[in-house]
Amino acid sequence: MTFDLIIHGGTVATASDTFRSDIGIRDGRIASLGLDLGTAARMIDATGRLVLPGGIDSHVHLAQPSGPGVTMADDFLTGTKSAMFGGNTTVMPFCLQQKGQSLRAALDNYHALAAGKCHTDISFHLIITDPTPAVLGQELPALIAAGYKSVKVFMTYEAMRLNDAEILATMDAARTGGAVVMVHAENEDVIRYLTDQHERAGHTAARGHATSRPVTAEREATHRAMSLADVVGVPVVIVHVSNGATIDEIARARHRGQPVTAETCPQYLMLTAQDLDREGWEGAKYVCSPPPRDHAEQEACWNGLRNGIFDLFSSDHCPFRFDDPEGKQRPGGATSFRHIPNGIPGIELRLPILFSEGVAKGRIDINRFVALTATNHAKTYGLYPRKGTIAIGSDADLAIWDPLLQRTVRHADLHDGCDYTPYEGLEVTGWPDTVILRGTVMVQDGNFDGEIGYGHYISR
Amino acid sequence: MTFDLIIHGGTVATASDTFRSDIGIRDGRIASLGLDLGTAARMIDATGRLVLPGGIDSHVHLAQPSGPGVTMADDFLTGTKSAMFGGNTTVMPFCLQQKGQSLRAALDNYHALAAGKCHTDISFHLIITDPTPAVLGQELPALIAAGYKSVKVFMTYEAMRLNDAEILATMDAARTGGAVVMVHAENEDVIRYLTDQHERAGHTAARGHATSRPVTAEREATHRAMSLADVVGVPVVIVHVSNGATIDEIARARHRGQPVTAETCPQYLMLTAQDLDREGWEGAKYVCSPPPRDHAEQEACWNGLRNGIFDLFSSDHCPFRFDDPEGKQRPGGATSFRHIPNGIPGIELRLPILFSEGVAKGRIDINRFVALTATNHAKTYGLYPRKGTIAIGSDADLAIWDPLLQRTVRHADLHDGCDYTPYEGLEVTGWPDTVILRGTVMVQDGNFDGEIGYGHYISR
Amino acid sequence: MTFDLIIHGGTVATASDTFRSDIGIRDGRIASLGLDLGTAARMIDATGRLVLPGGIDSHVHLAQPSGPGVTMADDFLTGTKSAMFGGNTTVMPFCLQQKGQSLRAALDNYHALAAGKCHTDISFHLIITDPTPAVLGQELPALIAAGYKSVKVFMTYEAMRLNDAEILATMDAARTGGAVVMVHAENEDVIRYLTDQHERAGHTAARGHATSRPVTAEREATHRAMSLADVVGVPVVIVHVSNGATIDEIARARHRGQPVTAETCPQYLMLTAQDLDREGWEGAKYVCSPPPRDHAEQEACWNGLRNGIFDLFSSDHCPFRFDDPEGKQRPGGATSFRHIPNGIPGIELRLPILFSEGVAKGRIDINRFVALTATNHAKTYGLYPRKGTIAIGSDADLAIWDPLLQRTVRHADLHDGCDYTPYEGLEVTGWPDTVILRGTVMVQDGNFDGEIGYGHYISR
Amino acid sequence: MTFDLIIHGGTVATASDTFRSDIGIRDGRIASLGLDLGTAARMIDATGRLVLPGGIDSHVHLAQPSGPGVTMADDFLTGTKSAMFGGNTTVMPFCLQQKGQSLRAALDNYHALAAGKCHTDISFHLIITDPTPAVLGQELPALIAAGYKSVKVFMTYEAMRLNDAEILATMDAARTGGAVVMVHAENEDVIRYLTDQHERAGHTAARGHATSRPVTAEREATHRAMSLADVVGVPVVIVHVSNGATIDEIARARHRGQPVTAETCPQYLMLTAQDLDREGWEGAKYVCSPPPRDHAEQEACWNGLRNGIFDLFSSDHCPFRFDDPEGKQRPGGATSFRHIPNGIPGIELRLPILFSEGVAKGRIDINRFVALTATNHAKTYGLYPRKGTIAIGSDADLAIWDPLLQRTVRHADLHDGCDYTPYEGLEVTGWPDTVILRGTVMVQDGNFDGEIGYGHYISR
Repeated sequence: MTFDLIIHGGTVATASDTFRSDIGIRDGRIASLGLDLGTAARMIDATGRLVLPGGIDSHVHLAQPSGPGVTMADDFLTGTKSAMFGGNTTVMPFCLQQKGQSLRAALDNYHALAAGKCHTDISFHLIITDPTPAVLGQELPALIAAGYKSVKVFMTYEAMRLNDAEILATMDAARTGGAVVMVHAENEDVIRYLTDQHERAGHTAARGHATSRPVTAEREATHRAMSLADVVGVPVVIVHVSNGATIDEIARARHRGQPVTAETCPQYLMLTAQDLDREGWEGAKYVCSPPPRDHAEQEACWNGLRNGIFDLFSSDHCPFRFDDPEGKQRPGGATSFRHIPNGIPGIELRLPILFSEGVAKGRIDINRFVALTATNHAKTYGLYPRKGTIAIGSDADLAIWDPLLQRTVRHADLHDGCDYTPYEGLEVTGWPDTVILRGTVMVQDGNFDGEIGYGHYISR
Repeated sequence: MTFDLIIHGGTVATASDTFRSDIGIRDGRIASLGLDLGTAARMIDATGRLVLPGGIDSHVHLAQPSGPGVTMADDFLTGTKSAMFGGNTTVMPFCLQQKGQSLRAALDNYHALAAGKCHTDISFHLIITDPTPAVLGQELPALIAAGYKSVKVFMTYEAMRLNDAEILATMDAARTGGAVVMVHAENEDVIRYLTDQHERAGHTAARGHATSRPVTAEREATHRAMSLADVVGVPVVIVHVSNGATIDEIARARHRGQPVTAETCPQYLMLTAQDLDREGWEGAKYVCSPPPRDHAEQEACWNGLRNGIFDLFSSDHCPFRFDDPEGKQRPGGATSFRHIPNGIPGIELRLPILFSEGVAKGRIDINRFVALTATNHAKTYGLYPRKGTIAIGSDADLAIWDPLLQRTVRHADLHDGCDYTPYEGLEVTGWPDTVILRGTVMVQDGNFDGEIGYGHYISR
Repeated sequence: MTFDLIIHGGTVATASDTFRSDIGIRDGRIASLGLDLGTAARMIDATGRLVLPGGIDSHVHLAQPSGPGVTMADDFLTGTKSAMFGGNTTVMPFCLQQKGQSLRAALDNYHALAAGKCHTDISFHLIITDPTPAVLGQELPALIAAGYKSVKVFMTYEAMRLNDAEILATMDAARTGGAVVMVHAENEDVIRYLTDQHERAGHTAARGHATSRPVTAEREATHRAMSLADVVGVPVVIVHVSNGATIDEIARARHRGQPVTAETCPQYLMLTAQDLDREGWEGAKYVCSPPPRDHAEQEACWNGLRNGIFDLFSSDHCPFRFDDPEGKQRPGGATSFRHIPNGIPGIELRLPILFSEGVAKGRIDINRFVALTATNHAKTYGLYPRKGTIAIGSDADLAIWDPLLQRTVRHADLHDGCDYTPYEGLEVTGWPDTVILRGTVMVQDGNFDGEIGYGHYISR
Repeated sequence: MTFDLIIHGGTVATASDTFRSDIGIRDGRIASLGLDLGTAARMIDATGRLVLPGGIDSHVHLAQPSGPGVTMADDFLTGTKSAMFGGNTTVMPFCLQQKGQSLRAALDNYHALAAGKCHTDISFHLIITDPTPAVLGQELPALIAAGYKSVKVFMTYEAMRLNDAEILATMDAARTGGAVVMVHAENEDVIRYLTDQHERAGHTAARGHATSRPVTAEREATHRAMSLADVVGVPVVIVHVSNGATIDEIARARHRGQPVTAETCPQYLMLTAQDLDREGWEGAKYVCSPPPRDHAEQEACWNGLRNGIFDLFSSDHCPFRFDDPEGKQRPGGATSFRHIPNGIPGIELRLPILFSEGVAKGRIDINRFVALTATNHAKTYGLYPRKGTIAIGSDADLAIWDPLLQRTVRHADLHDGCDYTPYEGLEVTGWPDTVILRGTVMVQDGNFDGEIGYGHYISR
């Protein structure tokens, strides 16, 4: 058998297995595993390194409208470039339906934004903000049938939130079509109530973002979202879980027999609400929702990564520049935390952080790492078996990691369109230095070696 | 000391104590306890009988507008008469604010309806259905200050439900004023979703009322209501709890330290969803919300009465005549259970049922009975110590029970304005045969011996 | 009616009620309640003060053998005197069966020790340490029938612990006879294992007492004890609960429908494991089992007192002198915490501490205080209605409290046989200054005014 | 590359992946995966079939002494043969230390019994019944170091049970050496107590086996075992979990962060306590411990298999002949269920039952099946990566399944030494028709094609 590319000498890890093997790639797919596969046109020596499935980041916001006077820091070009340098080969951004807009129009717009710019493959989730009968009865079924097999609903943010009736209707349409439903679970009315209280009391600094979005708001909405999904009979994904009480609700729902998938993110392992209390504008760098909590909740999240509560580890990359009046230093932010753009960057560091803090420190093993960062994403969202694993016939989407490489995180070294990282100065062990997309080397030894726009859209 | 009335020879029970004692009454109040109190103008021999605080039924609907073409079966005359014959001396009906109506106007209306007609003392809860800034900012504070210290919100029924923001605002006003908040906790959107499903599938018979209001809808709304109350910091009463999963939520909230009071009702001990499945219109007799569940849930409710989860046992009396086109046989009811008037009578049997099934069968003791049916109501809603106990200085509101009397329940023997009871044929042990209101004998040996309109309004 | 004694002008509180009333006492019993009872041979003015049922301390160790070379600091004389000055009128010490001893012999011994020395009424619990067939089959049934209606088993302490088979057999005999079973629930083998570890590691100071008896040991044993009681079908009392995880187990058992009564003590509200870490021998002053935990567990205990998990609040008075080679400074104690006599004094301060920290600070109301400190003890252990309440016919066991009196706790002011109190320097609000036993004034305005030995044994 | 054997055309499944691939085998190991691997000396066509890792049954009793007058139905010859025909390539029987025996002597005995007889590879767990200081201090550390990396303790069976101190000591030695601890968690004293009760009441039939071993006995012991393991800090495996309450305990321990692995077995999915109530001796066929429960508990176990609570699915094969005075019809069994040999066969049907009821019926997917039946066993007990997966370098232990083949279970078709199966008449879909051990075909198309004794011992 002949191959286009052979990666040899490495240790391959999948969501269940770890073994020494060469990988023979032909026509962009994994054609053979085994030792001594011979030679090929291109050979990459992975001796002493780990060969993992390329990461799939299934929770990413790129070029998403974020309100008047606010500009998201990443478009598809920078966002996928940053993802690629962080070891990812597939990114799943959201396609946001705006009120009054058809889903198709929204998709056309996002496809246009992405065209020719992607460094990784991409696939869209549909955010439903206007679930009219036409949208749920005609557009959505057609789009699910066409491969858009995941929809997301928000229980917070005035411009996007759905009420329970709308969530039920959306879930019903998703179940009928065979799509999974992602939920951002925070109770908007609770947050609004507390935000108003904060403002009346003059507590308008960034820290108020955390205290106005308490664990109770997230626990409540999560319990409700799962109850609604249970009534409808649809699988549900609770995204970006930040704390132990919410984890407990998820565990209880599963104990009752309900299919619930749960996700957490780097910010809930690495940051705390105290970060929002930094001086001046600094706190704004850490404004995201749900907010980071405290060290006990971090431990609860680690425990959930270990014991199987979490199947997904995503970035929730939602970047706004810091030193920018269209970003974190938006003028209104000085009058109330409510006006600070909500979200933080993380697409490039998601994998190094989990590898370093999780695998290198012995909290999880490498197979769990692969499952949490690639395989489970592909399975949850319908990309499997094409994406998310190293198996015969799968796309040759690979990241080669040096498990011992030590780096200090500097935003200057990253590739996103933002101007800061919340993890500046963090010491990490392990880094993906070579990234291969469908058999094509995109990054080798840390240097871009690919072609802009090689990434394309994956229908599911 | 001289007394107007002495009850002698009986066994007195309070929420904590049981002892043989005479009771000396003067000026409508309990003036003395002791043996050998001497003689008075009027003497009642209670030898061999129990002397209990008159029941307080804090969950009663009387003369309440129930939609076009529907008439509630009881006004204040028949409702309080029925309550009185069932051993009660205080009834707490709801004053329903209709959309657009001021609370004051609603109260004026209810006070007018009650004037001169009451056989028991009464006090109103305020149902808030239109929580405008004017209502919450001005009217409600004034009314709470004037003694209306309990408000109720609905999470179900299209005409009455509040959304979370409205509940939070109402709770906030209640907390500021010092009122307690009662919640009817069922998720309206879930019920609507399932009701629509039932109707589309042609499942329009009465049993659909039960299957369209599943435990999940009640558990979800209860968890949410408690979460909202926790955010606001207000004590909350979860009324008419019907099942173990909801009880479990309440227990967990208390374990977290939250002040939550819970109530259950006779229908959740004695009826099941199968009753709604009876032939023809019969099932309509059992349509109430939440619906009766099954035998396992009945046991869970008994357990909650025993182990302290429930502090309140009320009737949720909400009577509609059966053989009546303005009642259960409302024309629309034939097309869908959704149009069957929602509620069942129970004001006269609440106490005999709990006594017979609870005390006589050994599930609870007589002190717990008194607590559940009188004392805790008075304490929860601000009538204590004037009402709800047998103590020096309290109103002489008393019911004398023959604990051994056996009766078969027949609606023909009851005094309400309805034409059926869901408990027809039930054999009970124990009955209140003499009832005294503020020292005045209203019922003696089962015969009315009082004066219509002797009951008056109690401000709190 | 004529009375021997009238207490007038006070506010009476029971487990459910609070009301202004005089109390007329005749023949040692409460004969009448009411205002204006007239005059009697002896009049006590309680104006501005609270008249409560005398406290019942149902968890007390007096004159109990505690191993070679160790002497308990209190006999019945000092122990009941101290109790009396702390507002108690009944004390329930343990009668410890020693291995090989008959229960009858043990009881004879304790009765002899108590004879003529008691300042309060007393009644014994039977500690079973040698549950032979003869003991369980013959002696125990006879003693239960004779009124010894509570037995206690230990799951810890080498000399006293029973294994599961012995506990089951003892519980079975108790159920047959109609007695309740008290359990000291800590897993001895876990403690032994950790103690050995501590000693091998040289961690022999007093703080090791706390770390060698972790929450897990208590939670495990509690779950086991309740499981055994559930199998047998006997009511069980879990004594001296110290933490939230154990409380959670108890709540879960009750949710399953099991009758479980739970007790906590002042040390779990006021002390922490850090107290055991004080310098030199000081830590030894706080050595008791289970050990005090931390502030979060204190809050969990307060929450349990508030929400009904705990029915009993006792002292677990188990006094050893501090500056004494037969007490806390026992020679062996210097080599390992294992040899420090295990227990602390608290009989005189139990009520003032709960009053001050609970009632005066608004955590519990006065009725809950009475229930927790008197009524529930009487009901749980069969002394009710003779003891534990203020009701017609009950013993006139009363404590008159000045609810506003502020005192600083000094051991010098206490009346026990110990030489320290763990609460030295604590500021308390509220104190019982007059104590009446069966109508006889024992303490008036803080001065002893009674007769040694007036307390006698109460059969149940 | 050349291969000794190629399996071509099949669909390979691992614990995480499913893909079409040939498998190239050389020197007993998996050398290559890929399509078009070419030809080899031996070719097996797996077109239309599943190629799975050979099953690992980690809970098996073979030739184990079972009390006087009782003979286990399988030795290593029949037991491993039956396992092999059921799709297994590795079996992990127990090596039972008898009281007074050294572990080494016990092992020598078992190794001798196994020598030359095995159709599958085997590896032993050590059952510790006599944890003397010599055993724990010297023998066990040496044996763990020599590769015996799992020990098992019993909390039931008079001849085998350890008390808590012994369990702690054994766990401590296991932790020090790096072994995992398996626990049979049922409270012996509870069972003894109830068994005595049953016998006194004359309830001696087989059904008494179920009622004398209630869920409470299992839940209690499981909570205790996990508590002990938590104190020691050792990973623990709770074997043969039968019910939801126990599952809930395990979930709670994991939520606290404890590493607990759990196992269930076919009998808890397929049988109920009613099976023990069959007429005559028939009930004896279903006597095993814990006993089968009811349909609700079966659903709880399925849920646990689905949601990740269970990592292991084993047979607990413990065979006794039915029509045999040294088996189920042991003479004493007629006088009390206590004397019926305890255990049922299942080694050959474990995989077909889980495949048919789980995979074919859509309850679990094929990857979960592989994880539950092979991979997780290898990882839990230290056989991985040599055993339990299909990966480069792993032993070529494979089972080829026809996923559509329908069979009716008949004991006559099975290969064990027993004379019945509890699953007689069960219709199953899917069967392993070809089994390969270290590259050697043992069974092809349902016919034995190997060599007795080819299985050998695997040190870990």
